[in-house]
Amino acid sequence: MKTLTFQDIIAARKVVARFLKQTPLIHYPELSKHLGFQAYIKHENHHPTGSFKVRGGLNFMQHLPQTQREKGVITATRGNHGQSIAYAAAQFGVKATVVVPYGNNPEKNSAMRAFGAELIEHGADFDEALELCEKLQQERGLYYVHPCMEPALFHGVGTYSLEIFEDLPDVDAIIVPIGGGSGCCGAITVSKAINPNAKVIGVQAENAPAIYQSWKAGRRIETDSCDTIADGIATRAPFPLPLSIIKEGVHDIVLLSEAELKEGIRSALRWTHNLAEGAGAAPIAAAYKLTDTLVGKNVVMVMSGGNLDTETLKKVLCYQL
Amino acid sequence: MKTLTFQDIIAARKVVARFLKQTPLIHYPELSKHLGFQAYIKHENHHPTGSFKVRGGLNFMQHLPQTQREKGVITATRGNHGQSIAYAAAQFGVKATVVVPYGNNPEKNSAMRAFGAELIEHGADFDEALELCEKLQQERGLYYVHPCMEPALFHGVGTYSLEIFEDLPDVDAIIVPIGGGSGCCGAITVSKAINPNAKVIGVQAENAPAIYQSWKAGRRIETDSCDTIADGIATRAPFPLPLSIIKEGVHDIVLLSEAELKEGIRSALRWTHNLAEGAGAAPIAAAYKLTDTLVGKNVVMVMSGGNLDTETLKKVLCYQL
Repeated sequence: MKTLTFQDIIAARKVVARFLKQTPLIHYPELSKHLGFQAYIKHENHHPTGSFKVRGGLNFMQHLPQTQREKGVITATRGNHGQSIAYAAAQFGVKATVVVPYGNNPEKNSAMRAFGAELIEHGADFDEALELCEKLQQERGLYYVHPCMEPALFHGVGTYSLEIFEDLPDVDAIIVPIGGGSGCCGAITVSKAINPNAKVIGVQAENAPAIYQSWKAGRRIETDSCDTIADGIATRAPFPLPLSIIKEGVHDIVLLSEAELKEGIRSALRWTHNLAEGAGAAPIAAAYKLTDTLVGKNVVMVMSGGNLDTETLKKVLCYQL
Repeated sequence: MKTLTFQDIIAARKVVARFLKQTPLIHYPELSKHLGFQAYIKHENHHPTGSFKVRGGLNFMQHLPQTQREKGVITATRGNHGQSIAYAAAQFGVKATVVVPYGNNPEKNSAMRAFGAELIEHGADFDEALELCEKLQQERGLYYVHPCMEPALFHGVGTYSLEIFEDLPDVDAIIVPIGGGSGCCGAITVSKAINPNAKVIGVQAENAPAIYQSWKAGRRIETDSCDTIADGIATRAPFPLPLSIIKEGVHDIVLLSEAELKEGIRSALRWTHNLAEGAGAAPIAAAYKLTDTLVGKNVVMVMSGGNLDTETLKKVLCYQL
């Protein structure tokens, strides 16, 4: 099976840097006092698409053969992955088609359209959208960009971990949300190469614990549902590539309740004045449960994305969810 | 009188770059469609202190003589200026004392303390805090950092305009909130040097229109009050240095009602997924009133800061203010 290499993450750096500014790693003194360790946030919510995934999309487009670039790409998504592909495709002059299920967040849909993607609504859920995606891929000769099995996506995403170690060489722990798992795999691969003493701690939702359960059981487990406010980490079925890397290299995985995830969004606003989506706030929420083990350490929390719609934000702030 | 020079802004760049990452200038395709021009946001809310002022604080500390660095500095503030001085002082190993009036926003107070400043609460309003500040300055031999009359602060702040022109050389208009006026002065000085065709458009609150009125009247006018949700632009008395530059170089100044400022905060969340404070959202709110004159243009809106407390945010979202 394909795997990730540190060398390919290094190479992806150059691609990503052509399009994106390095995101800041900010030390928050107040949050640090509050948590009892040196609290740093890696602001992946500061990208033009509002999430880390764009790093992967850009690196993927770079490696797509020119003949395929001319035919175009297709993917199925509910949000950040689609924005990443739409944005990256536009930068490379590639036509992107994105299939979303009916009822998908209209703000996310219009964002993908605005980046220039053709958006097709189809099916009752993600799996049905995926079916159309596979059909169109064949009919139209498009390349299907699988969100969790394309090494080029993972290598692009891995560049944020490279930036973390450059800005804070003596990082003790990196807390990273796990959905598909690309962010966590990048952190594991980079930390193994640069400083194996740095611990990579994953975060999942209690309502979407597929990777957590698979990691605990030592075998691949799918869940029946993945209904969480943190849609960026709402995955039901782990994929082999990320699962094998995470099983090998993750130090711990923290599970969060929906209440804890919502408290994380409020904490992010309070302590960092950043709008974080559920997944992006999950590392802060997880940190509250890890204060005993992390006391005095240098801890990086990855704010993976900020694409929270206003209605949900309002409900979270007013405790109506 | 002292004035600003482009050369000193160029020189400040090197100082600022030692401590801060360049902030992104992000193009928002959806917001662009919505407003009818190419909408770019300069994300000065992405700094460690959450506002542009930190650029000025750092440049100021660089130019402070070593003997004075050893004695320390003092200033009076209600927020972002104090955070800037506290942060910059800490970077240079300088002791900072900050005087705030009683009843000042407790979140802002604790942020300044966390950056290492000694915080003194004194007086019923800013002017009374300022009196103690002047007294302590003499008693303790501290340097008083005037927020609106120190060229080094202005030159530091001017670096964000330099970054704007580098990232988008053919910018047609820069919309910038005016409180003390340092941001606007930087934009004027830089645009005059690089591209005099670029228009600098200021924004003030109807409830705090001192610079607007002074600009219209051609003479310095103070207002009796400055009660606006946009505390970053709540100034009653214009200072000579910024006023002379703004009178000379600003293309237009837009006034915003409190309702428009609050709508700006909601728009910033909706279209950019960034938490902006009132002043930081003011350029977006102003843009809605300028769509006719800016159609098709490249327009930069300066999101000057994001330090909005959660209670105010909640009220703005729920239309309770």
